[in-house]
Amino acid sequence: MKPTIRDVAKMAEVSISTVSRVMNAPHTVVESKRSRVIEAIEKLQYQPNAFARGLIYKKSNTLGLLIPDIENLYFAGVIRGMQDACIKLGYSLMICNTDRDKERMLSYIDTFHEKQVDGIVYASDVLYPECYEKLTGCRIPFVLVSSHSEEFDVPSVEVDDERAAYDAVKFLIELGHTEIGMIGFNHDNSVSGPPRYEGFVRALNEAGLEHNVEKVRYANHRFEHAYQAAHELFTDYPQVTALFCVADEFAMGAISYLKDRNILVPGQVSVIGFDNLRMSGMYIPKLTTIAQPIYQLGYRAAEKLHELLTTGKVVVPTEKMEHKLIVRESSRER
Amino acid sequence: MKPTIRDVAKMAEVSISTVSRVMNAPHTVVESKRSRVIEAIEKLQYQPNAFARGLIYKKSNTLGLLIPDIENLYFAGVIRGMQDACIKLGYSLMICNTDRDKERMLSYIDTFHEKQVDGIVYASDVLYPECYEKLTGCRIPFVLVSSHSEEFDVPSVEVDDERAAYDAVKFLIELGHTEIGMIGFNHDNSVSGPPRYEGFVRALNEAGLEHNVEKVRYANHRFEHAYQAAHELFTDYPQVTALFCVADEFAMGAISYLKDRNILVPGQVSVIGFDNLRMSGMYIPKLTTIAQPIYQLGYRAAEKLHELLTTGKVVVPTEKMEHKLIVRESSRER
Repeated sequence: MKPTIRDVAKMAEVSISTVSRVMNAPHTVVESKRSRVIEAIEKLQYQPNAFARGLIYKKSNTLGLLIPDIENLYFAGVIRGMQDACIKLGYSLMICNTDRDKERMLSYIDTFHEKQVDGIVYASDVLYPECYEKLTGCRIPFVLVSSHSEEFDVPSVEVDDERAAYDAVKFLIELGHTEIGMIGFNHDNSVSGPPRYEGFVRALNEAGLEHNVEKVRYANHRFEHAYQAAHELFTDYPQVTALFCVADEFAMGAISYLKDRNILVPGQVSVIGFDNLRMSGMYIPKLTTIAQPIYQLGYRAAEKLHELLTTGKVVVPTEKMEHKLIVRESSRER
Repeated sequence: MKPTIRDVAKMAEVSISTVSRVMNAPHTVVESKRSRVIEAIEKLQYQPNAFARGLIYKKSNTLGLLIPDIENLYFAGVIRGMQDACIKLGYSLMICNTDRDKERMLSYIDTFHEKQVDGIVYASDVLYPECYEKLTGCRIPFVLVSSHSEEFDVPSVEVDDERAAYDAVKFLIELGHTEIGMIGFNHDNSVSGPPRYEGFVRALNEAGLEHNVEKVRYANHRFEHAYQAAHELFTDYPQVTALFCVADEFAMGAISYLKDRNILVPGQVSVIGFDNLRMSGMYIPKLTTIAQPIYQLGYRAAEKLHELLTTGKVVVPTEKMEHKLIVRESSRER
């Protein structure tokens, strides 16, 4: 049988609450009792388990992460950053995969509540009012990563999507392209879809290329949807020579479509992605892309949540991290 | 203030242990008391938190997963399968990323112990004696996925690595190739490295092609190492026309190297991978590969652990799941 706090109390001839105080606030216990308790803990090799510790300390030292799709390499990178920050800060990390299903999100918030996580990182999805209400109702502090909320006052870390998209499209324009298309995120319930489209439009307008603003097709997060969107786009606009994809996975889907149609990338069509997934340097051709600091976003999100948990507030409520253009093989001069 | 079990007991005019029994074993409580407790629970909207529930039920309904590398698409697929099984079986899933670091593994086992997970799935890595001892010392039931143990008696789910590798190489031989190389896992602390090499050798021997058994270079799990291994292999054996890679990520690394050297795949060299990652159908060329039932491996691992937790044993201790040859674009007849 594992020793319990009761066994410690018995051996040290003190009350259970004294043992608890020795673990929690040792200076409040007189020296003679304190040393007896410590001796008993050592003799019994007593380790408070997480449940008991939760009752003693009112803290679980666990963070929860709600992630839309663990098979998406973008989130895998975010998780790695968060996990490393958690190790540094002394937290365990519980990860739940929501599949972008609102009911599952709500149910996982209940699970996190039951497990008494100290706080939650809410990744990438729109902050639905139902989720906001449940989280605040449960009094679980939380921060957003790769997302933000206009409606609610919640700390967030992300890149500047509008400016990043603008930079991608401006790069294509500077290469001499004048017929430019885009594969975007469906705007329904998308956080980064609308600002990335706005960045596309701003770059076109600035260059007098507003005839392209209609050359957009939308896809639903995955390679195969982007393949289909590329098919629609190039069927309607065969004159396009440069393509902005709002995700590297979309760029891969589009390139795969073009390859199947014997259209050369970058020979006939330049393609730029977004994210700089680990995979983007492995693709053929290697992807030109807008790098998000994926690992750092995860890391900062955990630090921000820790700041919120330990100080009750965050100094920078809506933080933007820097993106960067990475030029590889999938783009070239017109 | 959130209501506690004490508030429920007070309102229902029963003892705390009666409330606990109503939640745990309602048939042991007389009807009149039981209905008062249920009424009080409903009025107060009482929800036992996980800590308290752990103390009441001695179960946390949480499983732990030790995974070597969350950024590896193989494990992402395993996690998805496990997560879906956990939802079905009523568990939460805590995932910890070990980076194949033995110290970190041991420390996460402590974390899981503190959080009182009901059981652990140990993915892919060698079952080190230190880990085995700690897990059995903590009395945490566990199963292995994509791994097995010769030394210890632990339930496991995996594919038959030797036979799967044999099938891959036999396929290359049947295409007419006689100069065949391999990029394998470093055998140090690798579970699947040695049997996959044995399958390679068996297929070669059977076909009288044993002059190839030396044409092997090793890589360390990632694309860039496989790129380097391919460089070494083709520098030493430029005559190779077919390559067996023990992971799809290795196949991508090798193809990327060949592309950089202007060697056509499959025109000059056929490449077969292993795993059938989601990515393997997106690559250019699309990968011929040996499919592992990745999602199902994760799903079965969770089911097996559940079987162990609920019945104290598993009916099939070392389970092998079926692999399958998937022919796509990266291979062709000699």
